[in-house]
Amino acid sequence: MSRRLHLSVPLRWSDADAYGHINNVAVLALVEQARVLFFAQAECDGETLPRLDGENLGRSPIFLTGQRVEYLMPLRLEIEPVSIDMWVSHIGGADCELSYEIRQQPSSPVAATGLNGLVFMNPETGRPRRLSAGQRQVLDSLFGEQVRLRH
Amino acid sequence: MSRRLHLSVPLRWSDADAYGHINNVAVLALVEQARVLFFAQAECDGETLPRLDGENLGRSPIFLTGQRVEYLMPLRLEIEPVSIDMWVSHIGGADCELSYEIRQQPSSPVAATGLNGLVFMNPETGRPRRLSAGQRQVLDSLFGEQVRLRH
Amino acid sequence: MSRRLHLSVPLRWSDADAYGHINNVAVLALVEQARVLFFAQAECDGETLPRLDGENLGRSPIFLTGQRVEYLMPLRLEIEPVSIDMWVSHIGGADCELSYEIRQQPSSPVAATGLNGLVFMNPETGRPRRLSAGQRQVLDSLFGEQVRLRH
Amino acid sequence: MSRRLHLSVPLRWSDADAYGHINNVAVLALVEQARVLFFAQAECDGETLPRLDGENLGRSPIFLTGQRVEYLMPLRLEIEPVSIDMWVSHIGGADCELSYEIRQQPSSPVAATGLNGLVFMNPETGRPRRLSAGQRQVLDSLFGEQVRLRH
Repeated sequence: MSRRLHLSVPLRWSDADAYGHINNVAVLALVEQARVLFFAQAECDGETLPRLDGENLGRSPIFLTGQRVEYLMPLRLEIEPVSIDMWVSHIGGADCELSYEIRQQPSSPVAATGLNGLVFMNPETGRPRRLSAGQRQVLDSLFGEQVRLRH
Repeated sequence: MSRRLHLSVPLRWSDADAYGHINNVAVLALVEQARVLFFAQAECDGETLPRLDGENLGRSPIFLTGQRVEYLMPLRLEIEPVSIDMWVSHIGGADCELSYEIRQQPSSPVAATGLNGLVFMNPETGRPRRLSAGQRQVLDSLFGEQVRLRH
Repeated sequence: MSRRLHLSVPLRWSDADAYGHINNVAVLALVEQARVLFFAQAECDGETLPRLDGENLGRSPIFLTGQRVEYLMPLRLEIEPVSIDMWVSHIGGADCELSYEIRQQPSSPVAATGLNGLVFMNPETGRPRRLSAGQRQVLDSLFGEQVRLRH
Repeated sequence: MSRRLHLSVPLRWSDADAYGHINNVAVLALVEQARVLFFAQAECDGETLPRLDGENLGRSPIFLTGQRVEYLMPLRLEIEPVSIDMWVSHIGGADCELSYEIRQQPSSPVAATGLNGLVFMNPETGRPRRLSAGQRQVLDSLFGEQVRLRH
């Protein structure tokens, strides 16, 4: 359980829908922000991953190929950030998969789970790029079992 | 191929991300809007589905249990709406699954595909509610094979 | 009253806030979209304005310097688009001001009004660029009195 | 300069537009979030303001009557939150005005300024409600000159 990043993602008033719950699409904006934080914080022996934030505008070093989400219970609008655990559940030649669990607070039950499929890109050519040894090491350091989905 | 709804969903300037493509999360906002249109337009012999728009604020008649999306190619920001085909690919006792394909324009190749899992709710009790015969008839009239996903 | 564009901007489920009204910020996303349509549709004797949509990604031909909005009554979430009237209420050397009125439907009372200040830019240099004679002609053709604000 | 709240509002990847800048509309989502924090944090001798967050879903204790914003320079997408100073620049019978300044970081030059007009509401009746002595005291404690706007 320790080979994962514990990320804090603040909510916004506009994340709440007409039912007073965090909107289904807003949940995926929270996951997107968790992914940005994951790529900024993941580190192992000085090795890092490409960053997804302002440093890499224009052409992305990562392409999201797919995602899954299962909503288990609604998240409520609160001043406190939601808690997202994120880890690596598959490492391929030029791709990886991230698993995640979202909780209202770190000690709350899981409200949503899911997967992100990512391909590493060469921003110059726009084609997939094999993971470097350093990147593989970072991903390995955060490796765990794929999150269990019901469907 | 005809037992599906062909829905038009307009883009917004703010859907485009820092790479000039429709943002991954915005794609799911387009799917959400397609779902609202699907529930408003689906009809068979005078039978309809509960509506997800302003008529049902406060307590939802539908709960989204999960979704999957696969991004095949980027959508571009254009004045013309994107084209979303949506159909029913599973009918359960109180739940159903919608499959969808998104294209830049009706004749474009598929840019994204995915699934939505939905449970019908009793807004009074907040518990699942079995599909009525009329609702089942509407869902049947738009039934097709589950969209093919790669993963 | 005729020297204005009547623009239709579709709503989205996610525009509604926890009170079931179109969120204050979402109103400005509708105005942004109306501005994109205004620049795409404004035309006079074959003269046009720079477009704000996908044709001009990367470096903008227009810089928004400021905006004002007054909310007179809430907009409701509906399947039908809101109606936005937009016209030119000031023309400067390299800048202009747009006035707007938003209605739930074309015949509804005004729900929100406001102003947009815009500067025309040279995308190569990132500096303001004087309006061309053709652009001035287009703006002139849609000129009217500044919308009345209460504050 | 001390009678104001210094608020930190985190950015999101989806706030950046196709030009790599924080989108004009997203700036107002940041202001909205600052307003929520302002109402949650403003306090004077144990007196507080009504909260705008999850505690007051359903019927709002505050109605936003209008806003102004002037964009002085673009905000960039960064991992660090933007810094928003917010204070009270007018106190009426049942209304008030908030002034604000947005900076990329606390020591950066001002990137945007503006005003928010607010009316205090009785959520039961949906009508304006006179400020209580306690609320007036809180607003007084954060009172300052109206932010200077250029237009």
